[in-house]
Amino acid sequence: MSVEDWDRDNCNVGRAIEFIGDKHTMLILREAFLRERRFDRIQRNTGIARNILSDRLGKLVSAGILTRRPYQERPRRYEYRLTEKGIDLWPLLVSLMEWGRRYGGGAEAIRLHHKGCGAVMTPYLACPECGEQIGARDVEALAGPQAVLRQSA
Amino acid sequence: MSVEDWDRDNCNVGRAIEFIGDKHTMLILREAFLRERRFDRIQRNTGIARNILSDRLGKLVSAGILTRRPYQERPRRYEYRLTEKGIDLWPLLVSLMEWGRRYGGGAEAIRLHHKGCGAVMTPYLACPECGEQIGARDVEALAGPQAVLRQSA
Repeated sequence: MSVEDWDRDNCNVGRAIEFIGDKHTMLILREAFLRERRFDRIQRNTGIARNILSDRLGKLVSAGILTRRPYQERPRRYEYRLTEKGIDLWPLLVSLMEWGRRYGGGAEAIRLHHKGCGAVMTPYLACPECGEQIGARDVEALAGPQAVLRQSA
Repeated sequence: MSVEDWDRDNCNVGRAIEFIGDKHTMLILREAFLRERRFDRIQRNTGIARNILSDRLGKLVSAGILTRRPYQERPRRYEYRLTEKGIDLWPLLVSLMEWGRRYGGGAEAIRLHHKGCGAVMTPYLACPECGEQIGARDVEALAGPQAVLRQSA
């Protein structure tokens, strides 16, 4: 079966996009990785309208990407932290940052410091088998075991 | 300056999200990386309404992420291909795919084959300095040279 005939209902990219394919959600995730946990600070840093921010935070909690816990009583206030499932979105943010740096004017408002070796660096994608750096042209997509043949229209 | 005080107007993640922080756009990019170039096939594979698809394709062309060129006259029909700027979004798609695989049920409709070494693999992020695999907890964000201090409210 060739990739062209594969039914996209079964697509992991599509599933991920269902959760995070929204610009407000992506900005909230950025703030979460910068350890901004409180509604008012996230609101200030993103400029998202309060009702939309409240909606998107609720969806991220429902999706298990953020957890919510009270940090204050009377009035009760919550903070939002990334779960493991949320932390696993880090490569997505790194990809956005690097592409934005390359094509958004080249400013570096943030740099990534690798605590292990001390380098200020931009991560790259590597092949776990051979260790080589890989890009789009080094890879081809093959139909996987759960690919489903498209029903013809 | 601490990262908390940095004005987000200068954010590369935010700039990238302006271009691609939309679920329709991200699905179109998926199709582009699967070498689907024609309106009708992209429409069929994504299920995006024709008017929205037309709008998003136009925006991707304007942004220099896709190019449009005719493949047929009378009636004139165009195909859409990734530019270099578009191809550089590949790490984003890989990140979405891997996260979707891990948290979307685990099905593998597509596998990535590294042409260089022959492995079927999932790329990982590595540090260019030491070569080690890196994740969110191995890295801290530092204010970069173009960070701008937030004006207090």
